[in-house]
Amino acid sequence: MENNCCSGCSRPDLPWAGRGTSLPISGCRFSLYPMCDQFVDQILGSLEKTDTSAVWSESDALSTVYRGKLEYVADAVKALFINAYRDGIHMAIEGQFSKGCPGDTDGDSVLEREGEAPNRELVKDIHFPVHCKLSLYPMGTGEYIDEIAKVWYMAEDRGLQPKTIHYATRIEGDVHEVMDYLESVCELMEKSVSHYILHFTMNCNSPTVEE
Amino acid sequence: MENNCCSGCSRPDLPWAGRGTSLPISGCRFSLYPMCDQFVDQILGSLEKTDTSAVWSESDALSTVYRGKLEYVADAVKALFINAYRDGIHMAIEGQFSKGCPGDTDGDSVLEREGEAPNRELVKDIHFPVHCKLSLYPMGTGEYIDEIAKVWYMAEDRGLQPKTIHYATRIEGDVHEVMDYLESVCELMEKSVSHYILHFTMNCNSPTVEE
Repeated sequence: MENNCCSGCSRPDLPWAGRGTSLPISGCRFSLYPMCDQFVDQILGSLEKTDTSAVWSESDALSTVYRGKLEYVADAVKALFINAYRDGIHMAIEGQFSKGCPGDTDGDSVLEREGEAPNRELVKDIHFPVHCKLSLYPMGTGEYIDEIAKVWYMAEDRGLQPKTIHYATRIEGDVHEVMDYLESVCELMEKSVSHYILHFTMNCNSPTVEE
Repeated sequence: MENNCCSGCSRPDLPWAGRGTSLPISGCRFSLYPMCDQFVDQILGSLEKTDTSAVWSESDALSTVYRGKLEYVADAVKALFINAYRDGIHMAIEGQFSKGCPGDTDGDSVLEREGEAPNRELVKDIHFPVHCKLSLYPMGTGEYIDEIAKVWYMAEDRGLQPKTIHYATRIEGDVHEVMDYLESVCELMEKSVSHYILHFTMNCNSPTVEE
């Protein structure tokens, strides 16, 4: 049995059904929220600095989606968030990494790209602390509990202090540590399940003081 | 087989495991993002106007969670978003409605509440258009495709113009129509599956012009 999300399905008689794909297309749909009057400049400025040549990209009024090889998708999302950072400005990003939806299609991706992720060098020296929450949905497997256990222990091993909250797990750390962890979770899922979705929310410069 | 999310599991030897619950506790974890310098005032002002007496509530640096009966949870989330509305200010809310996680616990809810949802009258005359995307994960059922089909047709029937995008479904409409639709999706899931998660992102006053 495979569960599925609302975006597609494997029954071709339904109006939103895709054709399914056997290609290694990962993706991330995300939204960036700078909490300031200059949010448009902050987002456009970040887009200018971020190299998105290694991913297929589409934006609408709600979100942007990057699709391609996981390494390049994760690199572009990370760079976009880091390039948008401004001292003292509260900003959040929320998104969903995913691969393997039975309703997905073969198109809309850049898969011939090879070599170093294009933003790695550009953002590697920019550091700031972030809060993050994540909810992981490994689909179509009876072994999902063991997969989730691995993910939890991976967060512990990396010093990200995982903590259970209703409907999600909280982690904390430097933006690189947290983004790299999300990518590692996706890598693990892509090795072990046919379809996963990883929802995350991350922010910086939150005015909320936690006890 | 039941899939699960990262927030809990039914195996008590794992560190994040809850005890499970048979109580009718629905919940919504959400984050509100007013894209303006006065975002703190906008959020606090909305909190002051919103009656949260019918739900259990907890906030941290990333998000707020309301838990209780679905009707009251949905009422409080809707009112918080509507009360935060300001003319011309771009604002988004993202969240996840859920019920039935096997790792959930019996606590942290208000279940004895009866009667009219406390915010219904207060916000019923405030209207504005919103964009929304949603991703639905009905867990632990082989019939999930039929459930998802119902949800899609329900959006069509209500004139919300459902459209498939990668990893999600887009809808459009008045804030009440869209929020009420999300609540209806939850109602349907609560009748038909043991565990579901409905992720959504909604915004108003987006500066992005769509073709």
